[in-house]
Amino acid sequence: MNTFGRYFRCTSFGESHGCALGVIVDGCPPGVFFSEEDLLPLLERRRPGLSPLSSPRNEPDKPVILSGIFEGKTTGMPVAMAVFNTNQKSGDYDSIKNLFRPGHADYTFQAKYGIRDSRGGGRSSGRETVSRVLAGGLAMKYLSGSGISFKGKILEIHGNNNPEQFEEEILSAKNNDNSVGGIVEITISGCPPGLGSPVFEKMDAVLASAIMSIGAVKGVEIGDGFLSAKKYGSENNDCMGKDGFLSNHAGGILGGITNGEEIIIRFAVKPTPSIKKEQKTVSLTGEETLISTHGRHDPCIVPRIVVVAECMAAISIADALLAQNAIKMQ
Amino acid sequence: MNTFGRYFRCTSFGESHGCALGVIVDGCPPGVFFSEEDLLPLLERRRPGLSPLSSPRNEPDKPVILSGIFEGKTTGMPVAMAVFNTNQKSGDYDSIKNLFRPGHADYTFQAKYGIRDSRGGGRSSGRETVSRVLAGGLAMKYLSGSGISFKGKILEIHGNNNPEQFEEEILSAKNNDNSVGGIVEITISGCPPGLGSPVFEKMDAVLASAIMSIGAVKGVEIGDGFLSAKKYGSENNDCMGKDGFLSNHAGGILGGITNGEEIIIRFAVKPTPSIKKEQKTVSLTGEETLISTHGRHDPCIVPRIVVVAECMAAISIADALLAQNAIKMQ
Amino acid sequence: MNTFGRYFRCTSFGESHGCALGVIVDGCPPGVFFSEEDLLPLLERRRPGLSPLSSPRNEPDKPVILSGIFEGKTTGMPVAMAVFNTNQKSGDYDSIKNLFRPGHADYTFQAKYGIRDSRGGGRSSGRETVSRVLAGGLAMKYLSGSGISFKGKILEIHGNNNPEQFEEEILSAKNNDNSVGGIVEITISGCPPGLGSPVFEKMDAVLASAIMSIGAVKGVEIGDGFLSAKKYGSENNDCMGKDGFLSNHAGGILGGITNGEEIIIRFAVKPTPSIKKEQKTVSLTGEETLISTHGRHDPCIVPRIVVVAECMAAISIADALLAQNAIKMQ
Amino acid sequence: MNTFGRYFRCTSFGESHGCALGVIVDGCPPGVFFSEEDLLPLLERRRPGLSPLSSPRNEPDKPVILSGIFEGKTTGMPVAMAVFNTNQKSGDYDSIKNLFRPGHADYTFQAKYGIRDSRGGGRSSGRETVSRVLAGGLAMKYLSGSGISFKGKILEIHGNNNPEQFEEEILSAKNNDNSVGGIVEITISGCPPGLGSPVFEKMDAVLASAIMSIGAVKGVEIGDGFLSAKKYGSENNDCMGKDGFLSNHAGGILGGITNGEEIIIRFAVKPTPSIKKEQKTVSLTGEETLISTHGRHDPCIVPRIVVVAECMAAISIADALLAQNAIKMQ
Repeated sequence: MNTFGRYFRCTSFGESHGCALGVIVDGCPPGVFFSEEDLLPLLERRRPGLSPLSSPRNEPDKPVILSGIFEGKTTGMPVAMAVFNTNQKSGDYDSIKNLFRPGHADYTFQAKYGIRDSRGGGRSSGRETVSRVLAGGLAMKYLSGSGISFKGKILEIHGNNNPEQFEEEILSAKNNDNSVGGIVEITISGCPPGLGSPVFEKMDAVLASAIMSIGAVKGVEIGDGFLSAKKYGSENNDCMGKDGFLSNHAGGILGGITNGEEIIIRFAVKPTPSIKKEQKTVSLTGEETLISTHGRHDPCIVPRIVVVAECMAAISIADALLAQNAIKMQ
Repeated sequence: MNTFGRYFRCTSFGESHGCALGVIVDGCPPGVFFSEEDLLPLLERRRPGLSPLSSPRNEPDKPVILSGIFEGKTTGMPVAMAVFNTNQKSGDYDSIKNLFRPGHADYTFQAKYGIRDSRGGGRSSGRETVSRVLAGGLAMKYLSGSGISFKGKILEIHGNNNPEQFEEEILSAKNNDNSVGGIVEITISGCPPGLGSPVFEKMDAVLASAIMSIGAVKGVEIGDGFLSAKKYGSENNDCMGKDGFLSNHAGGILGGITNGEEIIIRFAVKPTPSIKKEQKTVSLTGEETLISTHGRHDPCIVPRIVVVAECMAAISIADALLAQNAIKMQ
Repeated sequence: MNTFGRYFRCTSFGESHGCALGVIVDGCPPGVFFSEEDLLPLLERRRPGLSPLSSPRNEPDKPVILSGIFEGKTTGMPVAMAVFNTNQKSGDYDSIKNLFRPGHADYTFQAKYGIRDSRGGGRSSGRETVSRVLAGGLAMKYLSGSGISFKGKILEIHGNNNPEQFEEEILSAKNNDNSVGGIVEITISGCPPGLGSPVFEKMDAVLASAIMSIGAVKGVEIGDGFLSAKKYGSENNDCMGKDGFLSNHAGGILGGITNGEEIIIRFAVKPTPSIKKEQKTVSLTGEETLISTHGRHDPCIVPRIVVVAECMAAISIADALLAQNAIKMQ
Repeated sequence: MNTFGRYFRCTSFGESHGCALGVIVDGCPPGVFFSEEDLLPLLERRRPGLSPLSSPRNEPDKPVILSGIFEGKTTGMPVAMAVFNTNQKSGDYDSIKNLFRPGHADYTFQAKYGIRDSRGGGRSSGRETVSRVLAGGLAMKYLSGSGISFKGKILEIHGNNNPEQFEEEILSAKNNDNSVGGIVEITISGCPPGLGSPVFEKMDAVLASAIMSIGAVKGVEIGDGFLSAKKYGSENNDCMGKDGFLSNHAGGILGGITNGEEIIIRFAVKPTPSIKKEQKTVSLTGEETLISTHGRHDPCIVPRIVVVAECMAAISIADALLAQNAIKMQ
């Protein structure tokens, strides 16, 4: 299943070392000004190779809009977008194509499909997130017309919450042939009350699914999240005054529906599984061996994942806004 | 949107103080032995009124199967199930029907629909979970044939992880006109490798959505979850030997696909928002006032939510199993 | 798959001789006045047993609304409706439960599910259409607020297009232990331009699917339909003047999207397969035999199918209207 | 809505004179041998410009597979395919971009979206069917492994059922600045019993929707179709003997489920709306005028639509086969 959203439907395709990655966004309303220019700053933020901290794979990531735009605006037709792969070094992966890399999807792909595109992780590569950024870029552009914006920031790297030491944490891991993870927070501002559904597609459930669907994310919380489990009801409830809510422990969502406050999402990113340090694994045929992953890998994916999470949040909100439009009585 | 699942599709209906609550499960394979008897122990576990710790509302919750069963077995036709409401005291709510209860969906329902069933929270009541238990009961019965089982337990109440003190924590909150939350863990055993989808409908994303869609849940994590953000890659990766995985930090899911290990889900439950303690709020017309919620409310919803979470996990796994069946080459 | 519609989602359940038949309508906007009273005239029109022309099974068909209505109006929550079966004579079917009735779904159900509810056709009985009328009744009520209405009429019975001879055709077939079919036309008035989708979910494709999903329907056409295949382009095109279209050969739909003219749908209904006349068939175990179907069967289903088709058209239009609402820029 | 199918999901994009047209097929099982070579004969059959009978627009229609294939086989990942437009003469349309062409979607697009890609019909152009052929080609390849095949033929052109006069009918229309339609029949062979759903997604309803979604199709019938409305039940029922069905009036589908016989679909194609002959219309601003459509247009679309209909049938059957796989008990 490679579609996210019901109304602002994003259907994604592409492998790390295939011909292209991309997405079709179906359901974007007509009249939204949109061009490749809108995508460049977002793609730049997820791009590797910009510093010694991230993977040296230097992809240009030039977006191409294939359909759905006429005279600079969306027409209501599906917007197909793609990035063609230009810097494929699948040879990097020949030596490990018959091994299951620990922490990767190699084993589970083999179990599920009986076949596996072994070139750089195929579709389970972090490169898959290019499609999310393309779709998210359109969602953001659409939502900007309603004053809704998305802002992510890193809270922690490897348990350290001092931003001045984030680079140090990552470099230290790298120098030890290891990797680290961290915690990210996304804030959605300007979102009107009334988005989301009261039972199964609660706004928090949709956002949790959106964020948890990003590779390497292992936990998600909304508002006070896990902390709320330690509080009294009287501490956790957001009281109201005549000017609105007096606090935002709920993180902008009550009963699955947005309440007009800022939406706060935090999530945990695991350390990159690809490390040079040797680890025990088995081959396709079950023989035990050691594996050391070389090649172009980030010692920490956290800095690049922020924009991806913003994009997934934007798609989720765009979807909920269209759903809400549908049921409004004229 | 009141449907969960694509293949094992559960469409839910009903309000706290309406005529009935129920669900249609569409897509359950034929030949599964199933009767109301299968539902009774599950409904009993979510039932209120069993101890001083939970709400004194003593609903019988007698399940009725309306369709889809012939000679004791599913036929492949939709299985509709309902529980008729018999113990409705909507009069309890008259005094607060024009007030927005803090921590509740009252304000957001009004913002979304411009109309609100004020009797006991209507569809945003915890009573809505009856439908989830009905559908989950069928999912569990179907999956038991494949040896898949679900087991939940409480890890913490109000930050206290000593099970012998859980009751004390809850009673203490109740005696102070307050409420508490906690943390629950669900373990899924016997799940084969290969379930879940590599990109948007990752098994962890689906489970996160399933669990986060339960009212009062504010955070979800899989496997080591938020802790994984503090570890090195070499500590977090699950190495493999010839007999399988050597650890289970991933919580049974790699790259969104189950790996055959136990699936571990933990989630945070906020304290019940309905408390006797007075809190600031506003009326429908914006006037400031104090509110104290009387009536039948649990001071802690955690003990009753466990079975609901097991049921949502069962529905998610049943759905993924059917999806996996679909693509297997004969 | 027992759901029709994406936005005005109708999920149906129930068997001919089970406990109840019904439907959940999810997605109906809030604020629509709706009660069981709205359903009675529609159910009356599909009711059998009113004349010697139709089946003597005299079901009361008392509708019950189970959820989604508060103070007489829809709330935006799912509207569950049911009719409980009261006049079940499944004993009628004992003698033929191991035979495949010609023209029926007996053989195909067995092939698909390996199990079959043999009581009166189970879910493939015409009684299943009760659920469609319940959902259609709500759709009609919602759409009446926008001035959209639905009107069906019989064009032909057994090839005879003289309405005064319809009854005669049916009685003649009945007296010969046989059955007849006919042709029905549905006209949708007041539908605004702009409904439907340009490619896969063209308004005509959705209506064709809606109508063809009614048991016994074997052909559907829109506007001039099959006749248009015999005309020149210059005869078939609908020219425009300053007051609008000058003709309506297209039947109200161009390029899959409504054009504001009346929508015209015609469809063919096959003769009821259940007849007293003996016919060759085989048993579950493959032995050849003769079958004669007794019991309560209409010699012609056409008069009762009209309201069902109107209801399916109403659901389709309600769905398209909500979809169109979603993408309108504010 | 630009997706067809639930399990073999085809999401289409592209405009007549845009950058590219294409499709993502999501849900195709792994292990199907597939390459661009498989698509060439199908694209050739829908290609214009091969004879004086069809449009002189000579597109090369070179298919490119963008994802989902590894070492010559599908991997279970989405298969994205595209044809890049190379022969765009949108200048052809400048003179009529502010007029509503009779029989076209110009007016309805404007009404729906308030904006319209006026270059050659944009997305409502017949060129959109390229995407259907790409997806259908993959469906056919997948199904060929199960021995299922698709064969279409023209039954009538302009009411004439003599194949030797089809060319004459078309040329005669062309010479008179006019156009003609016709009737096509699709036969599906080798389809197992058990595909399709008993209520809303009956196999005939899905096929009707699939075929009716092709531009210019105005009527669809299954098996004896409209003729069955004129017959007695005893004439229309397909009796059974020990070797199977004794006739196939039903066209291979009973109660919405395939019965193992050949599936027979017939449909009516209207005459091409674009004709040189002058016709009355109005401009965007409502002024009356005459229009004569020049440019590259087929005087009869019927010969090229055959392969498109086969492809839509193949997608429908592939989808139903996957759905049936899902519910089979192991």
